[in-house]
Amino acid sequence: MHKILYIPGPVEVRKDVLEKMSTPLVGHRTKEFAELFHDVKGKLKQLFYTENPVMVSTSSGSGFMEAAMRNLVGKKVLNCVCGSFSDKWYNIAIRCGKEAEKLEVDWGKAIKPDMIEEKLSTGEFDAICVTHNETSTGVMHHLEEISEVVKNYPDVMFLVDAVSSLGGAKIEVDKLGIDMCITSSQKALALPPGIALASVSEKALERAKQIPGRGYYFDLLELKKMYDKDNTPYTPSVSHLYALKYQLDRMLEEGLENRFKRHERLAEKTRKWGKKLGFELFPETGYESVTVSCFSDTKGMDLSKMKELMGERGFSVDSGYRKLNNKLADAGKPMTFRIAHMGDTTEEDLDTLFGAYEEVFPKVGGA
Amino acid sequence: MHKILYIPGPVEVRKDVLEKMSTPLVGHRTKEFAELFHDVKGKLKQLFYTENPVMVSTSSGSGFMEAAMRNLVGKKVLNCVCGSFSDKWYNIAIRCGKEAEKLEVDWGKAIKPDMIEEKLSTGEFDAICVTHNETSTGVMHHLEEISEVVKNYPDVMFLVDAVSSLGGAKIEVDKLGIDMCITSSQKALALPPGIALASVSEKALERAKQIPGRGYYFDLLELKKMYDKDNTPYTPSVSHLYALKYQLDRMLEEGLENRFKRHERLAEKTRKWGKKLGFELFPETGYESVTVSCFSDTKGMDLSKMKELMGERGFSVDSGYRKLNNKLADAGKPMTFRIAHMGDTTEEDLDTLFGAYEEVFPKVGGA
Repeated sequence: MHKILYIPGPVEVRKDVLEKMSTPLVGHRTKEFAELFHDVKGKLKQLFYTENPVMVSTSSGSGFMEAAMRNLVGKKVLNCVCGSFSDKWYNIAIRCGKEAEKLEVDWGKAIKPDMIEEKLSTGEFDAICVTHNETSTGVMHHLEEISEVVKNYPDVMFLVDAVSSLGGAKIEVDKLGIDMCITSSQKALALPPGIALASVSEKALERAKQIPGRGYYFDLLELKKMYDKDNTPYTPSVSHLYALKYQLDRMLEEGLENRFKRHERLAEKTRKWGKKLGFELFPETGYESVTVSCFSDTKGMDLSKMKELMGERGFSVDSGYRKLNNKLADAGKPMTFRIAHMGDTTEEDLDTLFGAYEEVFPKVGGA
Repeated sequence: MHKILYIPGPVEVRKDVLEKMSTPLVGHRTKEFAELFHDVKGKLKQLFYTENPVMVSTSSGSGFMEAAMRNLVGKKVLNCVCGSFSDKWYNIAIRCGKEAEKLEVDWGKAIKPDMIEEKLSTGEFDAICVTHNETSTGVMHHLEEISEVVKNYPDVMFLVDAVSSLGGAKIEVDKLGIDMCITSSQKALALPPGIALASVSEKALERAKQIPGRGYYFDLLELKKMYDKDNTPYTPSVSHLYALKYQLDRMLEEGLENRFKRHERLAEKTRKWGKKLGFELFPETGYESVTVSCFSDTKGMDLSKMKELMGERGFSVDSGYRKLNNKLADAGKPMTFRIAHMGDTTEEDLDTLFGAYEEVFPKVGGA
C-alpha cells in the first residue's frame, strides 16, 4: 500500500506528474533536449522572479548548498543557524575548507535583521547563508527584512536556502537581491527528489571567477557556460526535466499568486486545527512556516505509535525531527511533530488527513 | 516520435524499466526505503564482483569522478589520457586543486602496462586514473594487464572509470584490486541517467580519512556512514533506485556471464558488418570496445545528413564525437561515427538498425 506523504519532504507527487518520469528518453546533446531545457529555463525565471539564470543540478539541494560554498566564499561566511538544516550548511562550509562563523539562536527561534547587521558590520564576511524555511523547526524567516540589511553590504553574497519554501511562498529573488537562491524538487514543487535548482546573480558569477578549487560538478561557471547553450555540462536526469517542465506548466496554470495563497490557507487551517486540539506551535510567534507546521506535543503522546497508526491508515507522517527531539528531551521539554502542507496539497486533502489524526490521537495519549 | 537511442549513452531504456521511474515515492528515512536500498546493495556487489560497498550517488558519473579526486588524491595523480573522457578526468583533478600528470597517447590508441610501470616507478604518484572504455574513441583498455602493474604499488589508488562498460563487460573489481570503480546508470546498465555507482575499497576509505576538503556531497566517508545504515546522507533520487532494483533483478535473471557474452556477440556482429561495408575500426587493433564501435568514415560521408536521415527512420545515432572529429579534420584524416551496442540491445535490434543504415548510406556518399 502506498502511503500518502505528509512528511516535510519528499512530499506527495501527483500521479500525472509522476508518470512524466517514464517519458522515453532523448540524448542530452540533441535539439530535442535543448528545446526542453530552453522551455524550462524561461519558466524557472518566472518561478524565481528573476532575470538571472536558474541552473539545474542533478543532485539534492545539498549539492547546490555545497556549490554556494565552493564558488562564492572567498574570505569568510556567516551562517545563520536556527535548526538542523541551517547547521548543516555551516558544516558543509567547514568541510569545503572555508572559514565560517555561526550566528546561532535556539531552535524554534528566528534570526533577526539586527543580529545580522551587527555581524556584517564587522566587515569580516563576504557571504551570508540564510535558511528561509528551517524544516526541522518550522521557522520561516522574514527575507524582506533581512534583505534590507544585507543590501547595505554589496560585497557580501546573499545566499538563501529556499529548499522547503520556494514554490510555496513568494520569493522575489531579484527584488530581494539574492545572489544564489537554492531549492529542491521534492518539497513545495511536488516533484520526485533528484534535482536541485538555483538562481545565480551576475555578481555571484563574477565572484566565482576569483575562487579556486571550485571543482567540476558544482562549478557555477561551467554550469553557466552550458546553460547559455540550453544544456548542462554533464549528463542530467532527463526524466526529472520532463516532470519539471510538466509541473511548471501546471503551476503557472494555477497561477503563482494563487499557489502562494493556497499555501497560506493550508498553513492557517493546520495551525488552527492543531491549536484547537490543544497543541502549541513550536516556532516563535510571527515566524511560523507556510509550508510545514511544527507542533509541540504538549500532551506527551507516543509519537512512534502515532506514526505507525497513521501509516496503517495510509499516511506517511513525521514523528518529530530526531535531532530536535533529542535536544528537547535533554531539556525536559515536550517533543514535536510536523505536518507538511506544501506542493499540490488541497484543503480537502488536509480534512482527510486531520480525520485520521483525530482517530489516532486518543490511542496514543493525545485525547 | 521517439527515436531509439543508439548513441553511446544515454542508451535505450526498456518500457518496463522506464515505468519503474513512476513508482509512488516513499520517504528516504523510512523502513521501506532501507529495505529497497539494502536489496540494491547486495545486488550491486554481485555486479561489481566485490565484497566492498558499492555507493550510489544522485549525480552523473562525473560526480563520482570528482569524488575520486577529492577523496583519494593526496600527493599526485597519474591520468591515463587517450580521448575526451579520460582527458576530462584530468581536468577534474586540476579543477579540484590536485597535482596531476597526463600519461597521454594519440586518440584511438590504448595505454599499455609498461607505460604505466615507467611512470609509477618514479614514486611520484599516489593514485592512477584509468578509463576502462574511452567512449569518444571506442578504445577499451586491458584492465587485467594494467592491474598486474598497479598491484606492485600498494600506496597507489587504482581508480577506474567504467562508466560505459560496467554491466556490459566483466570487471572483477576485487580480483583486479580496483580501489574505486565508477559507473553510470545510462550506459551498459540501460537505465535513465541520473545516478552513478562506485565500489570503494577499505584502503580507499582509509586514504579518504587523511585528505582534507572532501566536502559533503561527494564525501566517501559520509556516504559510507549512511550506507552502513542502508541509507544515503542526502535525499536521493528514489525513482532511480526503484528502476535500478528492477533492472538489477533483470540482469541477474539473464545471468551476468550471459550478458557479457551477449555484448561480445553484439560487438563482433557490429565490427563485421561495418568492415563488410568498407569502414575501418578507429581503435588500435586488439583494443576495440565491446560496448561501442567507433568507425573511421573512410568514404567521407555527410555524417550530419546521415544522422538526420537515421533520425527520420526512428533512430538516434552518433555522427562522430565532436572533439575527436575536429582533431581528425585538423590532421586531414577521416571522421568517425560510433554505434552503441550495450545495455539491453539484442542481435535482432542491430539487424533492424543496420538495415536502416544501409538504406541511408547510399544517400550520404557511403555506398
